[in-house]
Amino acid sequence: MAGTHLSPDIVRSRLERVRALAAEEGLDAVLVSPGPDLRYLIGYDAVPLERLTLLIVPAAGETQMVVPFLEEPAAAASPAGGAGIPLVTWGETDDPYAAVARALGSVASVALDNHMWAEKVLRLRDAMPQAEQRLAGALVDRLRMVKDAAEIDALTTAAAAIDRVHAAVPSLLRAGRTEREVGADIADRILAEGHVRVDFVIVASGPNGASPHHEVSDRVLQEGDAVVVDIGGTMPDGYRSDCTRTYAIGDPGEEFTAAYATLQAAQQLSVQHVRPGVTCASVDAVGRDHLEAAGLGDLFIHRTGHGIGLETHEAPYIVQGNELPLVEGMAFSVEPGFYRAGVHGARIEDIVVVGAEGPIVLNRQPHDLVVVP
Amino acid sequence: MAGTHLSPDIVRSRLERVRALAAEEGLDAVLVSPGPDLRYLIGYDAVPLERLTLLIVPAAGETQMVVPFLEEPAAAASPAGGAGIPLVTWGETDDPYAAVARALGSVASVALDNHMWAEKVLRLRDAMPQAEQRLAGALVDRLRMVKDAAEIDALTTAAAAIDRVHAAVPSLLRAGRTEREVGADIADRILAEGHVRVDFVIVASGPNGASPHHEVSDRVLQEGDAVVVDIGGTMPDGYRSDCTRTYAIGDPGEEFTAAYATLQAAQQLSVQHVRPGVTCASVDAVGRDHLEAAGLGDLFIHRTGHGIGLETHEAPYIVQGNELPLVEGMAFSVEPGFYRAGVHGARIEDIVVVGAEGPIVLNRQPHDLVVVP
Repeated sequence: MAGTHLSPDIVRSRLERVRALAAEEGLDAVLVSPGPDLRYLIGYDAVPLERLTLLIVPAAGETQMVVPFLEEPAAAASPAGGAGIPLVTWGETDDPYAAVARALGSVASVALDNHMWAEKVLRLRDAMPQAEQRLAGALVDRLRMVKDAAEIDALTTAAAAIDRVHAAVPSLLRAGRTEREVGADIADRILAEGHVRVDFVIVASGPNGASPHHEVSDRVLQEGDAVVVDIGGTMPDGYRSDCTRTYAIGDPGEEFTAAYATLQAAQQLSVQHVRPGVTCASVDAVGRDHLEAAGLGDLFIHRTGHGIGLETHEAPYIVQGNELPLVEGMAFSVEPGFYRAGVHGARIEDIVVVGAEGPIVLNRQPHDLVVVP
Repeated sequence: MAGTHLSPDIVRSRLERVRALAAEEGLDAVLVSPGPDLRYLIGYDAVPLERLTLLIVPAAGETQMVVPFLEEPAAAASPAGGAGIPLVTWGETDDPYAAVARALGSVASVALDNHMWAEKVLRLRDAMPQAEQRLAGALVDRLRMVKDAAEIDALTTAAAAIDRVHAAVPSLLRAGRTEREVGADIADRILAEGHVRVDFVIVASGPNGASPHHEVSDRVLQEGDAVVVDIGGTMPDGYRSDCTRTYAIGDPGEEFTAAYATLQAAQQLSVQHVRPGVTCASVDAVGRDHLEAAGLGDLFIHRTGHGIGLETHEAPYIVQGNELPLVEGMAFSVEPGFYRAGVHGARIEDIVVVGAEGPIVLNRQPHDLVVVP
């Protein structure tokens, strides 16, 4: 795994913010296992495995990391090592949970990263039965949601890479090919354009387009199909791309074309609404209202979007009920769609950053329905 | 993601075994979120995401699955749908944890799959505070550890694919190239040989070989380097490959060559010890004893191996203290090594299946040190 090149200063600053938030919320410590939170905080891109690796950020006291003995060189070589975080190693027959309990002492409450595996959660519970377990997600999200300049650069680079893949999609779509064949070609291009991992490839043609999370199938593309292509991958620095465009093979028919025009306008309304201070829910509402006014509201069956960064789906969620106000630097998808069961579907998705004056749209491929002859 | 093609009969049989084991252990239900357990039990290869998908296997009563509304078509199209498991869907603004609590009623204990995210664990705890949470791992492992004929076929196919990659490694190694360049070529070949995902690529040359979990670096390969190449990927059906060979660029020196011969013998001793009824610990011990007798025991700093299947690391673990007896059909790595800090390292790894009469070794590339001119 490529490391994320965080400077020791950034690592120390992020850890200090976590520590301060923990103290503010009356938590004794934040415990972070391998995953996106760990990579964000200390640049250590460890794979979650059965052996316990755990960053311990106490509200008072020294940050340290428990690592398996044979992972010590990798941990020391990561930015965590550069920032001088002490490593507590354990051997193949030691009990690392007891080591965590010893390191923490008799604490009353700990917050666990949201992706920590149940086997770690329950073993920590058993090793420290007196410590109330809470989720660290909301706390760490307060940092991760608001991207710094380097992160916005990373997301911009990722968006440009997936845009280049979309630019090639019309050359791959034609009647007679299967979704799976097209998907395999797209996956190759996702890697060729600079991603290190293909996260998902949705090629949803004709009636399959009505399932928002359809992936690929052996369905053969047909004249008149609308085709939803929603693709994304991970760049070497861990930042993600995610972009949807809808294509048509020949004429998809009047009903589809009219609905698509409404969708295109709805997506633009949500995007243009983005600015500091408005709520996540309101970004969802403006596009949804437009679809509802055109009688398409019942066909828009999912939220408008999700944050993106070191995960494809992260805070903030652009969904009804989320009254969180947008802050400059937040980054998320705006991706309304319509889904007519058994018939067709469409979706348009861009990654948008909240700029001081309004939206900064990272994906640049045109939104008009691309009709492939 | 490609689905795993489990027949409805296999799905029903695996679920019935889980149900029976839950009843036997006094558990009211087993709860399984997306991950390898879910894929094993019902062939549904869902990605773990923020929206809750949860298979509920009660000790008494009907198995059902809670799924996000927009995942329903994917779930219904999976073998879970074919086996007739009822789907309980929830919409974007519903509380799925309350739905689980309603479905379960007032239970006293639930077992959670070991990889369930903390955010699910703690929200289930809050939705069902009366239910003691335990880990389902040991229970589900009793099924997953012992592979059926189709799974052994799948692991054999995966092993052959990674063997073809190793066969090409000598052509990629030469003084002057970096580990990263070699690793990128290997990753390409892992995909070209039929894997759908590269899980890891370790190219650990010279002193980097002394870190068992080193990945790749910009170190330039040099004449006289020993190079540990430990690689693996995921096949379309979800089964994994994992194989290590050690190469040398020119003459690695007498001390290394002598230690390598000892390692080769130790690995063979562990492999040949594999048969039904002997313990996991004893497989570790016979190889370790041989290395110790040659004065290399302190340099063998990790366990001998790990089970493999839908995960690269799963039960059974071949480690000191694990008195579990081997059963026909278990599959695991046998991978002793030696690691001299700052100097060099070596490891030899094969996947071995427990046959009725002894070991069935899936990886077939020779074990002799391959000296690249």
